[in-house]
Amino acid sequence: MNIAATSSFVLNRRHLLGIEGLSREEILGLLDLAEEFVELNRQIEKKRTSLRGRTQINLFFESSTRTQSSFELAGKRLGADVMNMAVNSSAMKKGETLIDTAMTLNAMHPDILVVRHHASGAVELLAQKVDGSVINAGDGAHEHPTQALLDALTIRRNKGRIEGLIVAICGDVLHSRVARSNIILLNALGANVRVVGPSTLLPSNVERLGVKVMRDMREGLQDADIVMMLRLQRERMNGSFVPSSQEYFAYFGLDQRKLAYAKKDALVMHPGPMNRGVEIDSSVADGAQSLIREQVEMGVAVRMAVLEALARNLPNA
Amino acid sequence: MNIAATSSFVLNRRHLLGIEGLSREEILGLLDLAEEFVELNRQIEKKRTSLRGRTQINLFFESSTRTQSSFELAGKRLGADVMNMAVNSSAMKKGETLIDTAMTLNAMHPDILVVRHHASGAVELLAQKVDGSVINAGDGAHEHPTQALLDALTIRRNKGRIEGLIVAICGDVLHSRVARSNIILLNALGANVRVVGPSTLLPSNVERLGVKVMRDMREGLQDADIVMMLRLQRERMNGSFVPSSQEYFAYFGLDQRKLAYAKKDALVMHPGPMNRGVEIDSSVADGAQSLIREQVEMGVAVRMAVLEALARNLPNA
Amino acid sequence: MNIAATSSFVLNRRHLLGIEGLSREEILGLLDLAEEFVELNRQIEKKRTSLRGRTQINLFFESSTRTQSSFELAGKRLGADVMNMAVNSSAMKKGETLIDTAMTLNAMHPDILVVRHHASGAVELLAQKVDGSVINAGDGAHEHPTQALLDALTIRRNKGRIEGLIVAICGDVLHSRVARSNIILLNALGANVRVVGPSTLLPSNVERLGVKVMRDMREGLQDADIVMMLRLQRERMNGSFVPSSQEYFAYFGLDQRKLAYAKKDALVMHPGPMNRGVEIDSSVADGAQSLIREQVEMGVAVRMAVLEALARNLPNA
Repeated sequence: MNIAATSSFVLNRRHLLGIEGLSREEILGLLDLAEEFVELNRQIEKKRTSLRGRTQINLFFESSTRTQSSFELAGKRLGADVMNMAVNSSAMKKGETLIDTAMTLNAMHPDILVVRHHASGAVELLAQKVDGSVINAGDGAHEHPTQALLDALTIRRNKGRIEGLIVAICGDVLHSRVARSNIILLNALGANVRVVGPSTLLPSNVERLGVKVMRDMREGLQDADIVMMLRLQRERMNGSFVPSSQEYFAYFGLDQRKLAYAKKDALVMHPGPMNRGVEIDSSVADGAQSLIREQVEMGVAVRMAVLEALARNLPNA
Repeated sequence: MNIAATSSFVLNRRHLLGIEGLSREEILGLLDLAEEFVELNRQIEKKRTSLRGRTQINLFFESSTRTQSSFELAGKRLGADVMNMAVNSSAMKKGETLIDTAMTLNAMHPDILVVRHHASGAVELLAQKVDGSVINAGDGAHEHPTQALLDALTIRRNKGRIEGLIVAICGDVLHSRVARSNIILLNALGANVRVVGPSTLLPSNVERLGVKVMRDMREGLQDADIVMMLRLQRERMNGSFVPSSQEYFAYFGLDQRKLAYAKKDALVMHPGPMNRGVEIDSSVADGAQSLIREQVEMGVAVRMAVLEALARNLPNA
Repeated sequence: MNIAATSSFVLNRRHLLGIEGLSREEILGLLDLAEEFVELNRQIEKKRTSLRGRTQINLFFESSTRTQSSFELAGKRLGADVMNMAVNSSAMKKGETLIDTAMTLNAMHPDILVVRHHASGAVELLAQKVDGSVINAGDGAHEHPTQALLDALTIRRNKGRIEGLIVAICGDVLHSRVARSNIILLNALGANVRVVGPSTLLPSNVERLGVKVMRDMREGLQDADIVMMLRLQRERMNGSFVPSSQEYFAYFGLDQRKLAYAKKDALVMHPGPMNRGVEIDSSVADGAQSLIREQVEMGVAVRMAVLEALARNLPNA
């Protein structure tokens, strides 16, 4: 069975750099288009030809198993020519700059550049320099828009809606582009978002994003429909205070006891990769309330939707 | 010229985890199907579309030039979307477990996972967790089934049969999944298998696999039709006695003098990569009796056969 | 719009190992064919099927972002099955030799091997051992033929001709395969070639290639139509005198002041990756006279032309 395209949604933008600035209609258009790809990906023949002859380059300045794989499969299933570039090595060592790398690739006429970079804003800077579409696959602590879209799709499929839900985003909010993109998206769709974590791991002005701030898991999880755990990003804590795993788990790690503070039918999410026994207990991660595997599945579908919706915006030859 | 499919062999299993448990009919079915791909691969247009729209992920927890390339080309030539994942780096460093990695990939709906892992049994464990087909590309000292199949194909094409042949498997049998898979397969097809090596490099209970054990090359190679050399796997000899190259070569390295103990028309094999001057002399490796290059050629064909035979077992959309 | 093939140029050789030995007609045939691919690559659907079912292996013994990417995209856009092999790691560590690696790959029936190696002559040695076509993607300080072809295409598109132009190749000529291939090609097409650099970075017998040698940038750039800067290859200066960046820049780095010695409409080239502030100033690299980005664009087109022209030389199935 071939799944025919039914949504004709077009993203009338050249780039997807963040959730910030996307309209409610754009977000919903992407989620609806992604639903088609969820179905397609469950078929044996997971293939469309809508990106045939287009070139997609995955340019990762930070390594990532999950996100890069997800984009790679998304592009291949849509028929694009996909090329991975891990930029730690070669050129950067020889003294080439971010912009040199971008301009070099640009001259090869990629239609889509999927970019991850350790510095906030680097992806947007790069987007200003190139001719094709740029998709932000995570820039520093700034944005990770496809993660927020896949999280929203996962929530909507399981709760039937996003509006009015209480979502608790817990843990290392300070270093998390996932948290930031999710807060903006969930607010745009009318959810009630809280962040929960120790003061040292919350951005000082996080309230300005329109969230309640709580420092205690019991209080923070009270009545939550969705408990979204974040990875403790020790590798980004240069020189600052790093909590011990045991201590962190005791206060902020999600186990069955803490999860019981949330609604009975609360669902648990984590963007991965997980630190089991640090921010989440295995019994919760693998338990009946966990949506963690489904998030990954939605990831491929959402990325296919973004690729296709951006590609549709290009003039046809 | 397009090589049409003539064999309709289907592997009525979900996974190929080892040679152990395969019937004689299954082994022969795979070898016969592989013969078609040997022909196809000698054409200029080496392409079928039987795996179009299927996703193959090569998940290598141990690096491998030869085996991974062979599977990659096999999948691409059958039209699959192929993705390589070298898992030393990214996710595992961030603390993700084997099963987390497997489940993450599983959520992306791979139809086929080709897995190599340094621990015996890890591939089978993983197969129990995922929905698609798993092909064991080598797990610890346990099994490497496609290597045994390609070796059998190579022997059959050169000797016309396997039954009744005397096969001497020589060297570091202890650390060798290649030896183990070969012993099981060759016994199943009626060969006469011997293992030859120093006591310290033979598994203590290797006779139970139905082989004769010999500790001297002169005796071990006597009347052999096939001399199968193994790589000395120093990297797996943690803390145990490691022989010097010179000493090892003197006693167990295959040179023309030792090869003369075997039959006049004996053929020499090695799974690669070779330690020249350690387990095998270059004059033998590159000599007229060597099948080593042909083994590599058969490798791609056998892997195409396995991929296609497993894919045929899936219900069609 | 699909760009139809109009040139029917065939390269009547099995390999492209260097510019040396190519006739003027072969060079022009490749440049003309490349023009078609320049057009194709500017379309949205950048795709032909002329290499469908062919296997291209990119075998890089030295890492390279730019050249490998360029060949990878070229092959994919022509419909080949493309496989990358970075050979630092796996097999070579296990003690395999260059020729073992080549012969192993050869047994997998690649139609095209794109090879980069740190040793001059290694690619030719390899070509003698394999059955398919070999393209030299850079061997030691010897040749880098596709770089010279892309440079010539860039010059011809911007100056309308190559014959009679004064081309100054400046800097670290000693370690540069780019310089060597360019000198041979530009001479074959009737350009007037000079090399400019410090004595320590000029090959002792470079005049024999038919170039003028100058040791001063003012003199060397006088009346030049094309100023081709080379990367200072510190990584190849084992044990020899390595100039400091500041000193080198002062005498041989191309800035606006030195560029003013050349013709008013002189154009600037660099094979990349650039050491900004060492051999070239950013104001020149990114300035109106720079062709550096266009060189990269021409690179993909030239590699498609080489792949297609070699493939046409194979008997059809």
